[in-house]
Amino acid sequence: MDEERFRKQLDFILEIDKEKTILRQTHLTGHGRREDDADHAWHLAVMTWLLSEYANAKIDVGRTMLMVLIHDIVEIDAGDTYAYDKEGKKTESTRENAAADRIFGLLPEDQGAALRALWEEFNAYETPEARFAHTMDNFQPMLLNNSNGGGDWKEHGIARSQVEERNAKTGTGSEDIWKYMQSILDANVQKGSLKE
Amino acid sequence: MDEERFRKQLDFILEIDKEKTILRQTHLTGHGRREDDADHAWHLAVMTWLLSEYANAKIDVGRTMLMVLIHDIVEIDAGDTYAYDKEGKKTESTRENAAADRIFGLLPEDQGAALRALWEEFNAYETPEARFAHTMDNFQPMLLNNSNGGGDWKEHGIARSQVEERNAKTGTGSEDIWKYMQSILDANVQKGSLKE
Repeated sequence: MDEERFRKQLDFILEIDKEKTILRQTHLTGHGRREDDADHAWHLAVMTWLLSEYANAKIDVGRTMLMVLIHDIVEIDAGDTYAYDKEGKKTESTRENAAADRIFGLLPEDQGAALRALWEEFNAYETPEARFAHTMDNFQPMLLNNSNGGGDWKEHGIARSQVEERNAKTGTGSEDIWKYMQSILDANVQKGSLKE
Repeated sequence: MDEERFRKQLDFILEIDKEKTILRQTHLTGHGRREDDADHAWHLAVMTWLLSEYANAKIDVGRTMLMVLIHDIVEIDAGDTYAYDKEGKKTESTRENAAADRIFGLLPEDQGAALRALWEEFNAYETPEARFAHTMDNFQPMLLNNSNGGGDWKEHGIARSQVEERNAKTGTGSEDIWKYMQSILDANVQKGSLKE
């Protein structure tokens, strides 16, 4: 065993423990507490395995699972930027790139580069895996929020057009799932949780 | 899209959200709150990818990641049984089997059977994947606990022999990691966090 290599791996493993303390705006089902980033990533990975049959293009399921597992690690430094926070979105990319340098930089070079590349692939939104990962990333909070009567949208006064804009590319990962998501939007507009 | 199939998948996805509310005895690094089961499973999956090079036998990394992601789902019904809770351990298996029937039973038959088989493989502790998954499952709380000065052991008055007994088979997944874990035990006995 190369002890320096192992030490770097452990440093990273302990560092990413902090992802469990980053809270999202989404609430757990049953009107629970706010979800943390690690909970969210876990849910996306299981969903990826379960729902990959609905991907528009064939995906490498294992690679996509790893992608969703690490996609929010940068938020340890950069924080969670709410999907509808216009000001926060302006600086999100700069903050997240600096975080990626530091956090993936803790790892042995080969593993740091591999995870960094996977994170960049996610952000570039071009491969079937990245597209499907984004579909999961957008579908999961909508499912939770819908199960809670759309309370997260109501709390932030969100309009359907904002959700549509946010999800402009969600259908590129899975048309089937995006179609279902639109039925959730219809229902929430109808009951007044989402502004017309 | 087979709507009944999709509906079953969504029922399962919403059901397992509850795993985020199951608290373990382990505290997060930085003397944080108690860890939840989904946080824990997320951590194990990333660790599996990072540390698979130390497995005694070659493992299928993707399969092992999925195994650790779903290994605690039964605790939604059965609760988390602390590693050193003798009374709880007596009924753990019965409680967990009933939970597996109900929860994996929510899924379409093919997917339910696949996840159930993977969970049983984990419990049987025989394949290289199951052995390595257990190494991760035992190493991760020890890492967190050690980073907090061994406070979880101290709080429960745990002795080194109990940890050794609990980890009797940890080395069958990775001798290298088990050797490192023993050095953590040495250090914690020395500073009095773990009884001799």
